[in-house]
Amino acid sequence: MQTTAPAALYLDDLHVGQTFSSASYALDATAIKAFAAQFDPQPFHLDEIAAQDTLFSGLAASGWHTAAITMRLMVLGGLPISGGIIGAGAEISWPRPTRPGDILQVDSEVLALTPSRSRPERGIATLRSITRNQRGETVQILTSKLAMPRKTDQV
Amino acid sequence: MQTTAPAALYLDDLHVGQTFSSASYALDATAIKAFAAQFDPQPFHLDEIAAQDTLFSGLAASGWHTAAITMRLMVLGGLPISGGIIGAGAEISWPRPTRPGDILQVDSEVLALTPSRSRPERGIATLRSITRNQRGETVQILTSKLAMPRKTDQV
Repeated sequence: MQTTAPAALYLDDLHVGQTFSSASYALDATAIKAFAAQFDPQPFHLDEIAAQDTLFSGLAASGWHTAAITMRLMVLGGLPISGGIIGAGAEISWPRPTRPGDILQVDSEVLALTPSRSRPERGIATLRSITRNQRGETVQILTSKLAMPRKTDQV
Repeated sequence: MQTTAPAALYLDDLHVGQTFSSASYALDATAIKAFAAQFDPQPFHLDEIAAQDTLFSGLAASGWHTAAITMRLMVLGGLPISGGIIGAGAEISWPRPTRPGDILQVDSEVLALTPSRSRPERGIATLRSITRNQRGETVQILTSKLAMPRKTDQV
């Protein structure tokens, strides 16, 4: 259980195929609307009735809300990286929307580890993080490149 | 100026190379910390002093905050799509951080238009949206695939 008392990991501590599991996060219609009002003010994120006649057929969270919740879950124990989770870039997709009442949870897997050629104290970890709802349905697939420190022996 | 009185555009209204410009959005340290406290609670997003000794060398916005602001700017006139901006997926990178006092603005360009083979009333528009600060420095590059309606003549 990496989620309890997470150790601060360096690139050298990871291996391809390693997995991490986050805690879970529940969100309701109020949270969906509050995020949308601030960052994604579109009818299908703001109003149950207006959302009925859209592609979503009902209130749905902004994809960026799902992404932000995923980040929170990774930061709070889902991915214990030394120095913090610092993304250089990512690919993201939303196979289905997050809905009011959903409980999200994130599983991450190390896909690749790339030491920096020019800076021996750093490297890039490529991770795939799948965000699922309480029914096990995937609501987001995130493949991110994270800047990570390496262990340097300078004794 | 597509940003004033935006028309609701269909896939058929777009052409490759077409550009759209958003309004601008200013953010301060308070906004950076508020977003971070909710979604990305790491020292370099939460506290100026703690941020000094990190890779960011000072307070920086969460990349997901930059992404959320970019979405807001696109929704509020930066990209007037019929039925709303509905992303199926995206690639995102953050060449440099967003800082307190930054004023962000988004320029989008149509990269590709792909009518659906199975559903004549729909298609995918691929757009590159560059988010810049008030010094013209790029803080985010977003390449997104958006679900868009097509004009259908059913008279």
